[in-house]
Amino acid sequence: MSARDIEQMPQTRPFLAAAARFRSGADTPRAFLERCLTASAAWEPKIGAFVHTSFDAARVAADAASVRWKGGKPLSAIDGMPVGIKDIIETADMPTEMGSPLFKDWRSGWDAAAVAALREAGAVIVAKTVTTEFAATEPRGTRNPWDLARTPGGSSSGSAAAVGAGLISAGLGTQVIGSVVRPASYCGCVGFKPSVGAINRGGSHDYLSQSCTGVLAATLGDAWQVAIEIAARVGGDPGFAGLSGPMQSPAAAKPRRLALLETVGWNVASNAAKEGLQVAVARLASAGIEIITRRSHPAIDAVEEAIAGAFPLSTRINDWEWRWPLNSCHERDAGKLSRAMLERIARGQAMRPADYREALAERARIRAVYAGLSSICDGCVTLTAPGAAPLGIESTGNPIFAVPFSLLGVPAISLPLLQDQSLPLGLQVTGFSESDADTFAIAAWLMQELGGVDG
Amino acid sequence: MSARDIEQMPQTRPFLAAAARFRSGADTPRAFLERCLTASAAWEPKIGAFVHTSFDAARVAADAASVRWKGGKPLSAIDGMPVGIKDIIETADMPTEMGSPLFKDWRSGWDAAAVAALREAGAVIVAKTVTTEFAATEPRGTRNPWDLARTPGGSSSGSAAAVGAGLISAGLGTQVIGSVVRPASYCGCVGFKPSVGAINRGGSHDYLSQSCTGVLAATLGDAWQVAIEIAARVGGDPGFAGLSGPMQSPAAAKPRRLALLETVGWNVASNAAKEGLQVAVARLASAGIEIITRRSHPAIDAVEEAIAGAFPLSTRINDWEWRWPLNSCHERDAGKLSRAMLERIARGQAMRPADYREALAERARIRAVYAGLSSICDGCVTLTAPGAAPLGIESTGNPIFAVPFSLLGVPAISLPLLQDQSLPLGLQVTGFSESDADTFAIAAWLMQELGGVDG
Repeated sequence: MSARDIEQMPQTRPFLAAAARFRSGADTPRAFLERCLTASAAWEPKIGAFVHTSFDAARVAADAASVRWKGGKPLSAIDGMPVGIKDIIETADMPTEMGSPLFKDWRSGWDAAAVAALREAGAVIVAKTVTTEFAATEPRGTRNPWDLARTPGGSSSGSAAAVGAGLISAGLGTQVIGSVVRPASYCGCVGFKPSVGAINRGGSHDYLSQSCTGVLAATLGDAWQVAIEIAARVGGDPGFAGLSGPMQSPAAAKPRRLALLETVGWNVASNAAKEGLQVAVARLASAGIEIITRRSHPAIDAVEEAIAGAFPLSTRINDWEWRWPLNSCHERDAGKLSRAMLERIARGQAMRPADYREALAERARIRAVYAGLSSICDGCVTLTAPGAAPLGIESTGNPIFAVPFSLLGVPAISLPLLQDQSLPLGLQVTGFSESDADTFAIAAWLMQELGGVDG
Repeated sequence: MSARDIEQMPQTRPFLAAAARFRSGADTPRAFLERCLTASAAWEPKIGAFVHTSFDAARVAADAASVRWKGGKPLSAIDGMPVGIKDIIETADMPTEMGSPLFKDWRSGWDAAAVAALREAGAVIVAKTVTTEFAATEPRGTRNPWDLARTPGGSSSGSAAAVGAGLISAGLGTQVIGSVVRPASYCGCVGFKPSVGAINRGGSHDYLSQSCTGVLAATLGDAWQVAIEIAARVGGDPGFAGLSGPMQSPAAAKPRRLALLETVGWNVASNAAKEGLQVAVARLASAGIEIITRRSHPAIDAVEEAIAGAFPLSTRINDWEWRWPLNSCHERDAGKLSRAMLERIARGQAMRPADYREALAERARIRAVYAGLSSICDGCVTLTAPGAAPLGIESTGNPIFAVPFSLLGVPAISLPLLQDQSLPLGLQVTGFSESDADTFAIAAWLMQELGGVDG
């Protein structure tokens, strides 16, 4: 398959906008779900976003939600929302295979924290979505609904493709390098990677210190709602404050001053991507927002310098933190690990505890440099990816624009506002640690100003 | 069974001292293991320390270790050491039941981080040891080898009883309130609860922010060795520095100044316990160590004030952090949860995220007060428990002396130096965050000075 092979343009399926009609009965969660399942019948054979589906249980859950909405007593704003769960996260009713043959049909028998919270909120769990091997780099065959010859990105490949094509309204993802915002960029949906620790990762098999659970969704409002409903019920990682903010998506707030970060990704970004961002930024400047860059402000230059090595430093931290569980997996059946994983094991084994401590100290130093920006500007904008999803599904694309904010542990939101090669491309908004709601308010303003429509 | 019913006094089984004879072949890990298994045959029917055993595999592993020692190439100083794994921690070859009927025969199929590291170091996994329900309060029938009518303490009940009676040289435990040092105190062994985050908890089902993996062992040296061998291979919790220090137990170092903390436990401690500690402290003073107390130094008074509410504050933090996985367990089969767990669920459900954040802030404040002590003294001493293990096995005893240091997240070591009712009682030494090796050096000095013998 070398060119587009799609009958129609992919279309996301916003939930909150539709839910306004559930109370009157003009629409119902069950009817909403059926539209998702119709989309699934059309798209899933082509994109391969799901590992396991749970359609029967989803219909039962959607019916129960329909009754609650009709009775005026929804469990939450996302009661009845069809969602997908990245297959690195445990579910009581479906296997959790982690994208690895080592965990074929593996079942924990219980729900991860985020899943338990989603069920409490009434969300309808439709499927487990494809993840790369252990949420790292090895892809598992999912295709991009915008062009089946292209990757949907990774590691949250299935959630991105399924949200992008409207099979679900939102999907859980995880990001340690670029696994939420990059696939969101490639698949034309919103991607929200919160502050590290903001969403409880209990029962999620991403054991890395800068990893966090995020949300891919049809709209900014849907993304916030999913995240805050989870945090309200199970909090963040133990010991972290957890996502805080209003129980509805923060209202749009015009920023006074934004930093335009180029990052080292600028060197490899496509011309169309760079021009698209520059046009968007020029529009923001016209609207009266002061834009500062490394050329206009020394503090921005210091941040650009500090984050320039984010990718190798993140890899180094991850390599050590992967010693377990990879040592246990290797003991069990090394033949079932990808070459990339075997190389990772070798790199981790070559490290000493002191090397890791040094890397942590360097990360802390870089975080402090970036944190200083909070007194200078309201947030930052940059690209989410160097361009449109690349051709081929043997790689999940280049996370170079995402990794600095993964290292920093700060909120990052990909907005489907740009294009490259007539394909979606995300504009990335980043904020400051544990100020996720402020970052959302800015993102909402940018969506309005730059022509997006958000429910 | 109302009184002692023991044929002989329980006796721990130090490993490092024995290992000195492995190279010459005068002793072997296999022979050492057989002595453990003989003790198991005599004791296990009476104390019930093990949930699952793996004796055949242990013999194979011990034989392999014997060959390595004889060839002069042991994998580590603990190659061949018989160890037990608290049944809250996953093992590839045995179920992990978490002390809950919900997880009867549950198998993850892989090794937790600490277990994988122990195997890499050559340790011989003998058994899964009894834990209370989810490492909390509901006991599961283990008895104290010093008096079968008494509790061994909890939640690391099985590891403490098995180490106390020499069925294993060391056992893994976890502590969030008092679950390592208290059972160590009751069972006459060394208990080491490290700084929070010092030992990788991957694959351990204790999801609480002040919980950490610890070691119960026959000697101080054995305890250090187990902990450092794990940390050298899999580090600490992701994002934490991990236990650091020498690859052999830190040499004894005489402290200049120690704080005697009474804690609120003083009000409920037995007279014999208090007198025992006072006699010990008087001996330290005679040896030239300056002892400061709340009556002699305002900083100590400030710490005593700060930690006075450690128990309710810890409970509050835990209640929120238990929302998951208890919500998932409740959904699955509420009838299989203890009354204590159902009450915990109700308390957690009554909390809001803001309550939790407030509790975290209070904990941070208290930690800062205690951390200030590091410029005033070298460490602190107190009791590990109010007295000997209480009669009855329906409760695991009072953790009141342990909980302040759990809340603080600092290293705490229980030394088998005191007695109450002719039964073991621990003297607790505590230090400062991520200075575990310094605390060990002080503990080693106290063991020498106060008459203990340590291998």
